[in-house]
Amino acid sequence: MTTVGILGGGQLARMLSLSGAPLGLRFLTMDTVADACAGQFAPLLVGDYRDEAALADFAGRVDVATFDFENVPAESAEWLAARVPVFPNPRALAIAQDRLAEKTLFRELGIPVPAFAALSSREELDAALQEVGIPAILKTRRLGYDGKGQFRIKSAADVDAAWQALGPQAQTVGLILEAFVPFERELSVVAIRARDGEFRTWPLTENWHVDGVLSASLAPATASPAVEQAAIEYARLLAEKTGYVGVFALELFCRDGELLANEMAPRVHNSGHWTIEGAETSQFENHLRAVLGLPLGDTGMIGHACMLNWIGHMPEATAVLGQPGGHWHDYGKQGREGRKVGHATLRADAPATLAEGLRKVGAQLDRQAQVAPVIARLGG
Amino acid sequence: MTTVGILGGGQLARMLSLSGAPLGLRFLTMDTVADACAGQFAPLLVGDYRDEAALADFAGRVDVATFDFENVPAESAEWLAARVPVFPNPRALAIAQDRLAEKTLFRELGIPVPAFAALSSREELDAALQEVGIPAILKTRRLGYDGKGQFRIKSAADVDAAWQALGPQAQTVGLILEAFVPFERELSVVAIRARDGEFRTWPLTENWHVDGVLSASLAPATASPAVEQAAIEYARLLAEKTGYVGVFALELFCRDGELLANEMAPRVHNSGHWTIEGAETSQFENHLRAVLGLPLGDTGMIGHACMLNWIGHMPEATAVLGQPGGHWHDYGKQGREGRKVGHATLRADAPATLAEGLRKVGAQLDRQAQVAPVIARLGG
Repeated sequence: MTTVGILGGGQLARMLSLSGAPLGLRFLTMDTVADACAGQFAPLLVGDYRDEAALADFAGRVDVATFDFENVPAESAEWLAARVPVFPNPRALAIAQDRLAEKTLFRELGIPVPAFAALSSREELDAALQEVGIPAILKTRRLGYDGKGQFRIKSAADVDAAWQALGPQAQTVGLILEAFVPFERELSVVAIRARDGEFRTWPLTENWHVDGVLSASLAPATASPAVEQAAIEYARLLAEKTGYVGVFALELFCRDGELLANEMAPRVHNSGHWTIEGAETSQFENHLRAVLGLPLGDTGMIGHACMLNWIGHMPEATAVLGQPGGHWHDYGKQGREGRKVGHATLRADAPATLAEGLRKVGAQLDRQAQVAPVIARLGG
Repeated sequence: MTTVGILGGGQLARMLSLSGAPLGLRFLTMDTVADACAGQFAPLLVGDYRDEAALADFAGRVDVATFDFENVPAESAEWLAARVPVFPNPRALAIAQDRLAEKTLFRELGIPVPAFAALSSREELDAALQEVGIPAILKTRRLGYDGKGQFRIKSAADVDAAWQALGPQAQTVGLILEAFVPFERELSVVAIRARDGEFRTWPLTENWHVDGVLSASLAPATASPAVEQAAIEYARLLAEKTGYVGVFALELFCRDGELLANEMAPRVHNSGHWTIEGAETSQFENHLRAVLGLPLGDTGMIGHACMLNWIGHMPEATAVLGQPGGHWHDYGKQGREGRKVGHATLRADAPATLAEGLRKVGAQLDRQAQVAPVIARLGG
């Protein structure tokens, strides 16, 4: 009997556990809070990731460890990796945790990126603005997610406010200025690499964000073969260079048919949640297969799928459950503003059927704005 | 937050819990043994189903109750139903628990059944043999499953041995003599009825047994529209007559294009395990939707699927995981002769692809005999 340890006990750990149960696996999750939602279906160890005693307890009870959360301190991951196999490896995690290291690696691998510059003072911010141009986005190098730790500089008048907001973090998590990309579409590649180096991707996904948080994903994205091949190749380069094992997502901006890499998420990813019903093998099961050295599952699609995120509170389930191909995912969390509490996936064999289902769900839940861009993309 | 109670903590309860987690449900299972495999992913209450204190504890902690196991004493189900909603209703459970009541109901509804006769003495066995004919099968009325509690009478010379084997149970669980049906195929309809009376079925499934235990299932079964319609109609009649809510399976013998009902299983069923990957909505999720009064999910197939049961011990997973469309289900049980410890499902878009996958799995696991009849049926 194999026990998989997961650092972080949120919805990703929960979905990993549920998808791994049929493989005969047991799980142990670790989180800083006692009501972490993965704990409803897998044992939960409550502790701080920097607490060596807690980590030692965790390490002693698992055969292999992985992450639900990329901001586990890199030192904690390394400490753990000295005691138990850890996938992805802590170096890959460390790169993905740091926007500067990540973008430097992208550039080194020939993956196009928006202009960027690191900075640690107000003077360096001014210099960076000269180099990168305006509009730009000032971001923390570490610990940002879902639009947090970011300030958009639309004109020179915004610079003072940006520095006021994020300057205090220049010496703690570091700052980076990135050119603002007025992209037409955001795409992601959810990819997986096995212990033996085998590499696969799920079909390209198109994503829509609201206030920096993912709102909807559609797969397969309509993209030219050239765009699709480039996206897959970038993901492959990253996986091979970092010796990555497991699932990761590469987020890309698309403008005039050109791709620019935004960031790499070193874990199963929100833009891959549709794979539970829309692919032969889900990102969750395949991540576990990779981590355990089992054969990778088929990443092919089954029809067309759209995922809708539920933020803050769960809407009425029946609107989705009443649709053919409507699937519901309630993470068992307390509602809270801005919190990801669940998602729905609609699956259909044909784009027009998917669009029709989305239209009905949007109308019944009064969420027309959330489904509208997806319906438009489906030609509906 | 809704907690679903499940009487019985085996693999069916385990798969119900795993499929219900995304609906935001919590579970409480109850079993007589502490290592019941559902307990690995849901809280488990250990107790005897006849123990009112244990049942009261169970009832007090759940919002609705259902079964993983049809042989929960009908009185226990009724006791529970007086305290908490129970689906399916105890009357339907009681009928399905008793081969005589079940076959009498089949006959009353115009559902063809093999000749049968109840008996409680050796003299009545002789009379029953006159009525039913030889070959026949002597069975216990209650508590039989997977070929247990049965004795096949191939000729008059077997009658004494049959009575020796089962006669002692004539006064406890009762006996029934059934005509032996030299059927060509065994089919099952996995069906669901909602609280509001909505009725759906998954596509017809063909089943192969070895030593009375299910070995393989294939869906969709190739059957004439007349056979398929008749099977669905029989299931509908049963569901409506018993006021059934939830999933059940109706097992049917098929000979010369004619159907004969064998038995009704008042729960999610082994011949419906393929629905996890091969249907838009699995039997497990749909059972919970019905029990909770939620809209039923689409029961349509996604391609073609074959389920292979693992009895006694788990084979090597990689043979299945290495096939496109290969899915693994390890119930987390200790191996034991004759015990259902897991299953695999192969899913493919085309019958020929499914046959090819089965051929490879059969060869790699040296289980050619298990896959051969399915491959033959697929025309492979």
